[in-house]
Amino acid sequence: MITHENFAPDPWQLRETALDLGVLAQSESVFAQSNGHLGWRGNLDEGEPHGLPGSYLNSVYASHPLPYAEAGYGYPESGQTTVNVTDGKVIRLLVDDHPFDLRYGELLSHERVLDFRTGVLSRSVEWTTPSGRTVRLTSQRMVSLAQRAVAAISYGVETVNGPATIAVQSELVANEQLPTTSGDPRMAAVIDSPLLPEEHYANGTRLRLIHCTATSGQRVAVAADHIVQGPEGTAWAAESEPDVARLTVTATLEPGQRLELVKFVAYGWSAERSLPAVRDQVEGGLAGARTTGWQGLVDAQRACLDEFWSCADVEVEGDEEVQQAVRFGLFHLYQASARGERRPIPAKGLTGTGYDGHAFWDTESFVLPVLTHTAPYTVASALAWRQSTLPRALERARQLGLEGATFPWRTINGAECSAYWPAGTVAFHVNADIAAAVERYVFSTGDREFQRGPGLDLLVHTARLWRSLGHFGADGVFHIDGVTGPDEYSAIARDNLYTNAMARRNLRAAADAVSLHPDRAPDLGVSAEEIADWRHTAARTAIPYNRRLRVHEQSAGFTDQEPWDFEATSEDQYPLLLHFPYFDLYRKQVVKQADLVLAMFTCPDEFTAEEKVRNFAYYEPLTVRDSSLSACCQAVLAAETGHLRLAWAYTREAALMDLDDLEHNTRDGLHMASLAGTWIALVQGFGGLRRIRPTPPADPRDQPSGMAGPVEPDAAALFAPRLPSSLTRLAFNVRVQGRLIRLDMGQSTARYTLLSGGPLTVTHHGTRVELTVDTPTDLPVPPAPASPEPRQPKGRAPRT
Amino acid sequence: MITHENFAPDPWQLRETALDLGVLAQSESVFAQSNGHLGWRGNLDEGEPHGLPGSYLNSVYASHPLPYAEAGYGYPESGQTTVNVTDGKVIRLLVDDHPFDLRYGELLSHERVLDFRTGVLSRSVEWTTPSGRTVRLTSQRMVSLAQRAVAAISYGVETVNGPATIAVQSELVANEQLPTTSGDPRMAAVIDSPLLPEEHYANGTRLRLIHCTATSGQRVAVAADHIVQGPEGTAWAAESEPDVARLTVTATLEPGQRLELVKFVAYGWSAERSLPAVRDQVEGGLAGARTTGWQGLVDAQRACLDEFWSCADVEVEGDEEVQQAVRFGLFHLYQASARGERRPIPAKGLTGTGYDGHAFWDTESFVLPVLTHTAPYTVASALAWRQSTLPRALERARQLGLEGATFPWRTINGAECSAYWPAGTVAFHVNADIAAAVERYVFSTGDREFQRGPGLDLLVHTARLWRSLGHFGADGVFHIDGVTGPDEYSAIARDNLYTNAMARRNLRAAADAVSLHPDRAPDLGVSAEEIADWRHTAARTAIPYNRRLRVHEQSAGFTDQEPWDFEATSEDQYPLLLHFPYFDLYRKQVVKQADLVLAMFTCPDEFTAEEKVRNFAYYEPLTVRDSSLSACCQAVLAAETGHLRLAWAYTREAALMDLDDLEHNTRDGLHMASLAGTWIALVQGFGGLRRIRPTPPADPRDQPSGMAGPVEPDAAALFAPRLPSSLTRLAFNVRVQGRLIRLDMGQSTARYTLLSGGPLTVTHHGTRVELTVDTPTDLPVPPAPASPEPRQPKGRAPRT
Repeated sequence: MITHENFAPDPWQLRETALDLGVLAQSESVFAQSNGHLGWRGNLDEGEPHGLPGSYLNSVYASHPLPYAEAGYGYPESGQTTVNVTDGKVIRLLVDDHPFDLRYGELLSHERVLDFRTGVLSRSVEWTTPSGRTVRLTSQRMVSLAQRAVAAISYGVETVNGPATIAVQSELVANEQLPTTSGDPRMAAVIDSPLLPEEHYANGTRLRLIHCTATSGQRVAVAADHIVQGPEGTAWAAESEPDVARLTVTATLEPGQRLELVKFVAYGWSAERSLPAVRDQVEGGLAGARTTGWQGLVDAQRACLDEFWSCADVEVEGDEEVQQAVRFGLFHLYQASARGERRPIPAKGLTGTGYDGHAFWDTESFVLPVLTHTAPYTVASALAWRQSTLPRALERARQLGLEGATFPWRTINGAECSAYWPAGTVAFHVNADIAAAVERYVFSTGDREFQRGPGLDLLVHTARLWRSLGHFGADGVFHIDGVTGPDEYSAIARDNLYTNAMARRNLRAAADAVSLHPDRAPDLGVSAEEIADWRHTAARTAIPYNRRLRVHEQSAGFTDQEPWDFEATSEDQYPLLLHFPYFDLYRKQVVKQADLVLAMFTCPDEFTAEEKVRNFAYYEPLTVRDSSLSACCQAVLAAETGHLRLAWAYTREAALMDLDDLEHNTRDGLHMASLAGTWIALVQGFGGLRRIRPTPPADPRDQPSGMAGPVEPDAAALFAPRLPSSLTRLAFNVRVQGRLIRLDMGQSTARYTLLSGGPLTVTHHGTRVELTVDTPTDLPVPPAPASPEPRQPKGRAPRT
Repeated sequence: MITHENFAPDPWQLRETALDLGVLAQSESVFAQSNGHLGWRGNLDEGEPHGLPGSYLNSVYASHPLPYAEAGYGYPESGQTTVNVTDGKVIRLLVDDHPFDLRYGELLSHERVLDFRTGVLSRSVEWTTPSGRTVRLTSQRMVSLAQRAVAAISYGVETVNGPATIAVQSELVANEQLPTTSGDPRMAAVIDSPLLPEEHYANGTRLRLIHCTATSGQRVAVAADHIVQGPEGTAWAAESEPDVARLTVTATLEPGQRLELVKFVAYGWSAERSLPAVRDQVEGGLAGARTTGWQGLVDAQRACLDEFWSCADVEVEGDEEVQQAVRFGLFHLYQASARGERRPIPAKGLTGTGYDGHAFWDTESFVLPVLTHTAPYTVASALAWRQSTLPRALERARQLGLEGATFPWRTINGAECSAYWPAGTVAFHVNADIAAAVERYVFSTGDREFQRGPGLDLLVHTARLWRSLGHFGADGVFHIDGVTGPDEYSAIARDNLYTNAMARRNLRAAADAVSLHPDRAPDLGVSAEEIADWRHTAARTAIPYNRRLRVHEQSAGFTDQEPWDFEATSEDQYPLLLHFPYFDLYRKQVVKQADLVLAMFTCPDEFTAEEKVRNFAYYEPLTVRDSSLSACCQAVLAAETGHLRLAWAYTREAALMDLDDLEHNTRDGLHMASLAGTWIALVQGFGGLRRIRPTPPADPRDQPSGMAGPVEPDAAALFAPRLPSSLTRLAFNVRVQGRLIRLDMGQSTARYTLLSGGPLTVTHHGTRVELTVDTPTDLPVPPAPASPEPRQPKGRAPRT
């Protein structure tokens, strides 16, 4: 898209200057607006043509039975899929009885702009009817970040070349007809007619529809009100039916005259509250919007984003596409999370139906790390959602014969929705990923209250899971058998290194956190013996290593497996999962996405610098990046091991994942994790924020043989900034122990500035740096160590 | 059942002396009759009450889509399930307008007898109507072994205590209403209304229905004719509708008068032939039956069975239940296979809908070994069926990216129907099991023509599968990764020992067979290099062994897994698969069914005697026998390792599996493999037929380190007879290299007699014995070696 001729790079906007119906669905995703509670895809105002009409409310879903040809104990019986709720975006237009439809007549000009600072999607169109009348249409649309129930549209039309009779139909539409999707397993299941009508209403300029989801019993209410301005003779009438409410405004315009409409829309839903309560809720939201007014909403939107960007912005000099992409990504991450308020952040945010609207480990492992540094309160909210699902996770663990909590692989409401257990149930690492997100958030922000509350709940119950999942072998080592790591081309393995290393972190983090909040130990039932057992177990967790090859193993025995035959694999056989059976992928050395490499990123202290170089060189030629989660992790390790050219190539791939539709499914929504990946690659790769928390063992005897990282016990963060040759400057802020640190780096110098908080010690390429507030420290950037650049599998070099 | 008070043991019959509706469905299975082409369950003549009405034609099935909540490459899209075809058994009776229904009125006496020598099911009932009239009903039923399309019933009724008006309705019924079954994954899917009517006909005493299966396009025709004998005034009329054809015979009987009916039924089906052709086929079959007549059919049935028993009988003295059970089992194996004629032998034969009527590896690994010695022509037929499905198996291998053939895990028509790949697609051992069945059949019978034809096709294409499935590791050893062995509580393992050892056999057997028939090498494309490669690969195939524990590993790393917590497992949690998730079963040391122990049975030369003792002692406490296939294998190894008491207990469990309904699913049909298991336990366990083919390596350098069995290169078979204390005598025949050898053994002496064929060398407990025809050799039986008897998991001792 960004390389599409219709999209010119711009540092603070996504701008489309011509309409290509071939990328309409993709454009709806990239122009999507959301506040984490409500999401509207960037559909054209008039509803058609469309790729996928989409209006989503976080956690409103349809449930459906999960079919199994051969059933098994513990298989989830019910799935969930996000539903397209009542569409409040639709404003149809008739010009002299010609429906305004860009497939007919002549489109003279078209522009859409999504501004990352204003949060407004602006549209400007000139169009001539088949009978020759030209109109100019402008619209501005927002999903309010300040008033989470509210969206609004400012819509105007004027005639250019003579008088025209205009009819504008502003609608609420439920159960919109959706296109059928392909059989691709990654495509969301289409659910027809998800909403049962309960009430419809139209009066004056006001519209309201109330429905109940057919399968999940959630009540959804949408109300709209309008401000109409037009020449004398402008008239309107409202009407409603069960699935549509409509305000029709008619006017006859002369050139120079203009019909304007402001549409306020309020959404509300509840699975518990009564119809009158939900009705009042949306009417209240609507009243709030009317009171604020269009300009008030615009101002508030800008204020929210100013606040966000003041901390979150990343400045990239030398690549205008990546500059745009990192802001595009941060903008969408903020949109996905800002007003989530104890609801999940789905893998595609609220931008489409991809992955059925489910949340995965992506959230904790990719999205939350970025939000921790840029909008930390959203992280507390997202983790509070996880905590709110703890009863289901505890119950799921019981069902599986395990202790503690087992969080779902994919879900909307906290119940496991994965119907394929080898890459679902046994991908237990999601639990450690949640624990790591807690640990990271608390360390970055210093939020002790969160740590004592939801944090401790999550850490303790996940630690217990690991303790019950693994076992001590005859070798005295703690092994975790039969699990699947991040690489979905391997499954049901022994001692997946990423899982084990993350489990070890989880056990230690739980032990540390309970020790900090001993008053909560009794109600969690944690004894001193249990804490000691967690530490003991963590210290003895297996870290598989092949001594002959001198590389770590992704899982025990992985490096003895048959290598995948990449020479015999053609480029059109990617993604491999659509062309080869799982069993064959699983038993060979082929890596879908960073796994051991991710472990080196998330648990850097498990590896020496030399091991990282050797490991990265070993796994690169096996990693095909059939997952959008991979490139950013590889960028970080490539940067760390000195392969700056390669790191930059991966950064660009991560940055352009959705903007260039590299995986050909941007139409289903944006990959939040990959959007986060641009920040990760820049900040953690080139900024070299390698670790924000050294975790030296409490007892030196606990030091495992595989743990050999450079430990600086009193350094709060380790930086190793180093730019690729393409960039002249990179600047960003990160949060460490409640401080805000700014790093502004060029090719030869890096400037550290402590923006807020007390003095702090960090390291710069291993050199200790004492930071005090507002006293910049300039340090030279050493040259990168030289080693041969690893090769990727045939045809799988970074796509840039 | 056999221990049910209504069933008294009898050496040559299964006899039921009272009716218990609580075991009606089970009785329908044990009284089922079949010839391998047509099967009738032992339903009561009058159709109701019933457990499961059942009439089956081998390979007539319904196809249905296999649902996947998450699809994957190579998943089978279509399943198959056996269907209840037109029922020709039904003969309803009205006495003074009272329907003869055992749930009403009073049942004065009831007896059913299935005679293993006559092959006839006889029934005798005295019943009083609710109004007090008593009638005596007798019936005899057979599914003809001599005329495969034909079944017949001789039915008679008389009144006992006064005149009665009698109406007899002899019917053909299609699309019978079936009971719904439970959600147990092992239960067959019920397919309602599987048959679409094409033609119905009734005239005189003749009836005919022709249908087509709704989903698979198979045309099924059934025709019946009758001979009616009754007192003066006996009248009859025939009528037909699409799904029912009916001959109604009416008579008024005085005491001493009798109404008799002989019903001949002919079945035919084809997926290719036209309606007139199939109509003529069944009318021709019916004409043949009429010409033979009832007594002619009875005589021919007896003759077939006399021939069978003359070779197949096993005499057991000291346990009348096992004596009955082994004959019951052999009788049903013969019924399942006698006229199969290039159709599969399903896991439940044609006795019920269990396992959807699919054939599994059970056939080649359990059923065919017994038939090889007792009715070898049926083995050639069953393997010819496998060969007929070779095109599908070659195509499946291509789909999976493999060479050679991949035979299905479960199927009716040769296409893979398993929807759960971890215990389906990757249970590749079925291919080696087929190869071993070929090898065994050829060696036992000396059938060189079969070896040169279907045998060679099967051996070569399965050998190629193994060569492409495994790979040589850096250790120079051939490894097979990611496969599932017989134990379904483990999956996707590296180097499953059973699979590897059987693959090695397969590679060598293919090499040997091509070498014997070099003229076929060109058309199979086999070069000298390929043969050498097979031998090289076989010699270097991994045989996992734990040196610390000094036991073989079921698969690489198995003995390092966490042991299952049997102490925490209650008896009502068996079978474990219904109470624990697969992932937990897979990653722990718990064995559903003999796997390593089966390898010691099928590949005895891979192990020394001491290793067998240690291995058996190691795996016994892990083996829960949640599969009916396990007990007989454990019986063989228990006998071999000297644990005769335990071996006998397992023999009884195998023998009573269906007769005592130990797995609570005899209602769905009989377990053919477990029925075979009784013979296996007796002949291969106590008879000690441990190996029928020594396979010394062609090149001594090919001797793998793990191969340490006692090799007697010129001994055709190794025997080690030894009786448990419960038995006084055991006698049976086996086929070796085209000879028939009889072994008649007591507690202290074993007599070997060569019944036919040229001189042969065998061993008796390691002592060479030269056998010549009709010259018995008596040899003393040495005492069993003593070692502590292994223990089973808590609560899982043999059920006897």
